[in-house]
Amino acid sequence: MFEQAVIAHVGVAVTDLDDALAFYRDVLGVMPRPPLTADGATVVLLDLGTGQVELLHSDDPTTPIGKFLAKRGAGLHHVCYKVPNLDAALDRCRAEGYRLLDEVPRIGAGGHRIAFVHPKATAGILIELTE
Amino acid sequence: MFEQAVIAHVGVAVTDLDDALAFYRDVLGVMPRPPLTADGATVVLLDLGTGQVELLHSDDPTTPIGKFLAKRGAGLHHVCYKVPNLDAALDRCRAEGYRLLDEVPRIGAGGHRIAFVHPKATAGILIELTE
Repeated sequence: MFEQAVIAHVGVAVTDLDDALAFYRDVLGVMPRPPLTADGATVVLLDLGTGQVELLHSDDPTTPIGKFLAKRGAGLHHVCYKVPNLDAALDRCRAEGYRLLDEVPRIGAGGHRIAFVHPKATAGILIELTE
Repeated sequence: MFEQAVIAHVGVAVTDLDDALAFYRDVLGVMPRPPLTADGATVVLLDLGTGQVELLHSDDPTTPIGKFLAKRGAGLHHVCYKVPNLDAALDRCRAEGYRLLDEVPRIGAGGHRIAFVHPKATAGILIELTE
């Protein structure tokens, strides 16, 4: 068996970043990192142990997050798993017939190589893989 | 500042447990724990580093998960954060005006004390707290 994956982060689409941040700050005691931009969205990373929450916002409906917010409103958007070897994990996806949104890994908001798996392949859940 | 929370698990509502498990087993190298029952749903826990994924299924539309699946289909259902002191965290929720689904903590699938925060209070995201 290959080495196991871990939860890297949970992506949450929010309509208002300040509103969403308040709960994490006031109830969970988390201080946000400075905002980044990725795929046209503003991204605020919150450290929660070895994992992170990624608050995502965009007003532009042509971006993936803006489209998600316009269609479904705020909510859980994706889960990212960190694997020891991204290329090997993508090869396993292909071998098992899981369709990929990113056939070739690209650089994500955190500066790491990432690839998204198509939600149709994973029971409706958008899954990101990183290493 | 109080001690920080960590991601305990991500709850995922699935229409078919075996189908959903295949991705975690074949691509991520995770072996499932024996199924449990909680709130009328079958719960399969998957260890992913210090956090877990909780696959949730119910065919009964009178249960919370069965209702979610009937209304919205498979998808990310909730995120659970582990806090050092659940009672203190619930007090902070009340002080900040975050409505609780569980005013008094109850015992969750894993045997720990849990309480859910109302999604209206947290930008549409169902959040569970545990300790």
